[in-house]
Amino acid sequence: MAMPIAAGAALSTLPSLSSSCSELNKWKPLNSNTHFHFNCNRSLNTARLSVRAMSSSTSVLTQDQLKKLAAEKAVEYVESGMVLGLGTGSTAAFAVARIGELMKAGELKDIVGVPTSKRTAEQAESLGIPLSVLDEHPKIDLAIDGADEVDPELNLVKGRGGALLREKMVEAASAKFVVIVDESKLVNGLGGSGLAMPVEVVPFCWKYNASRLQSLFQAEGCEAKLRMDGDGDKPYITDNANYIVDLYFKTPIKDSRAAAKAILGFEGVVEHGLFLDMATAVIIAGAEGVRVTTK
Amino acid sequence: MAMPIAAGAALSTLPSLSSSCSELNKWKPLNSNTHFHFNCNRSLNTARLSVRAMSSSTSVLTQDQLKKLAAEKAVEYVESGMVLGLGTGSTAAFAVARIGELMKAGELKDIVGVPTSKRTAEQAESLGIPLSVLDEHPKIDLAIDGADEVDPELNLVKGRGGALLREKMVEAASAKFVVIVDESKLVNGLGGSGLAMPVEVVPFCWKYNASRLQSLFQAEGCEAKLRMDGDGDKPYITDNANYIVDLYFKTPIKDSRAAAKAILGFEGVVEHGLFLDMATAVIIAGAEGVRVTTK
Repeated sequence: MAMPIAAGAALSTLPSLSSSCSELNKWKPLNSNTHFHFNCNRSLNTARLSVRAMSSSTSVLTQDQLKKLAAEKAVEYVESGMVLGLGTGSTAAFAVARIGELMKAGELKDIVGVPTSKRTAEQAESLGIPLSVLDEHPKIDLAIDGADEVDPELNLVKGRGGALLREKMVEAASAKFVVIVDESKLVNGLGGSGLAMPVEVVPFCWKYNASRLQSLFQAEGCEAKLRMDGDGDKPYITDNANYIVDLYFKTPIKDSRAAAKAILGFEGVVEHGLFLDMATAVIIAGAEGVRVTTK
Repeated sequence: MAMPIAAGAALSTLPSLSSSCSELNKWKPLNSNTHFHFNCNRSLNTARLSVRAMSSSTSVLTQDQLKKLAAEKAVEYVESGMVLGLGTGSTAAFAVARIGELMKAGELKDIVGVPTSKRTAEQAESLGIPLSVLDEHPKIDLAIDGADEVDPELNLVKGRGGALLREKMVEAASAKFVVIVDESKLVNGLGGSGLAMPVEVVPFCWKYNASRLQSLFQAEGCEAKLRMDGDGDKPYITDNANYIVDLYFKTPIKDSRAAAKAILGFEGVVEHGLFLDMATAVIIAGAEGVRVTTK
């Protein structure tokens, strides 16, 4: 497959599996020099997957190209025989596509995928990836998924794609969870993007819960909105037949752990989009290259 | 209405709203002498509602009669103008029936009921009780409901009727929560009846969650079973379109608070039947009479 790289950027093999350590604007990874912990027996072709734009170049890669770079980097850590958690969303879709490609080429064998949404299941099936569920495979070797926000401690906001519950179930069951993002997803505090932090709620009395959620984050200037479907005339329905209340913050969440606990304590809340202490590595694609950050 | 009392028992007016303080087998209420905290402006006819079997009598009341006694005692604390949480189950149904009766007689006016299940809504509607939901009435004055187990600290197991989520939502929103039981529901530790402690889960990978739940209570000899419907050929479906995994314990739960927290931490769990620190009073009907226990 041709390298998705535009003119003006240069290929560069990263020196090891460690981070490339570039400092992104305002985001200071705590352990950006640590090594990626996976044993990676499959021979790596980092040249194929790693890119670093020349410092003199202007922005040369589209967001989709960055997502694809990060996704393909993550797939380097997939080994034959693994049970894989397959994420949902535009970035994860690149990873699923890459896995399918490597299976077709015979480079990966005996893979079982545990999808985190119906649409990921459909994509994986179309690529010939054998699928299973947590009921049959309760222990997953490696999950790969995108994220909506990543903070400096590798805590995440996820679920803007609507699959937060199944993502969290699968990723919590995974020995390793690799997150793939382009650098636009980095925030200094969760909720800091000003975009949605989703909460899945039962339809029964959703207004009551939306009101309670908004009040919980009064200090952060929170606004709670029911997610509507594409046409905007009826509520969005999750794969689990629930609603999603999206929370929008004016300032980042002050204490994510306390917030997560309080949200789960609301009766009728099924799950929330704060993924705390779950990511084992985050692969970030940006103008400066692809870097891997671990906790 | 005729007193539901069989030959051999004698009517007796309780001296006050305080407990009758009889010691039931093995259950030692911490504060069985404390007074019931409600201001009760409506004139009480305790003779109508309170009964104490003569010590020489054998068991004279059926379980349904005891449930009815407790339910009607609880309804004494309903005042005109209240927003009421209406519970679900055979005992709560007696309370709903009594409220309807008093409204019809003009003794209660301007009542709004917030039902905890579809079948309670149907019963209340048939009785002419105006209904609302938490979305419209997020603050409830008084909830009345049955329970499956009551421990000496007035913590409860609820939800064998399948309505645990809506019950917990409504009852947590209530300024006062009065629980009505016959004495067969008293246990020394939650789970101690050997009957089901229900956990509502999303259908997705319910086996995975059932397995995790069973493992969580390994020390208590827990067995987790998917609740089936009446015919036993398909899963029971809650009002929220979820499944119920019933947990059966050989010995009572050792630490209910820790258990509640751990259960809620399982992704895919929607709610559980441990109602901790929620009841403000428990009305217990037994062979010795009706007594009120508060925390």
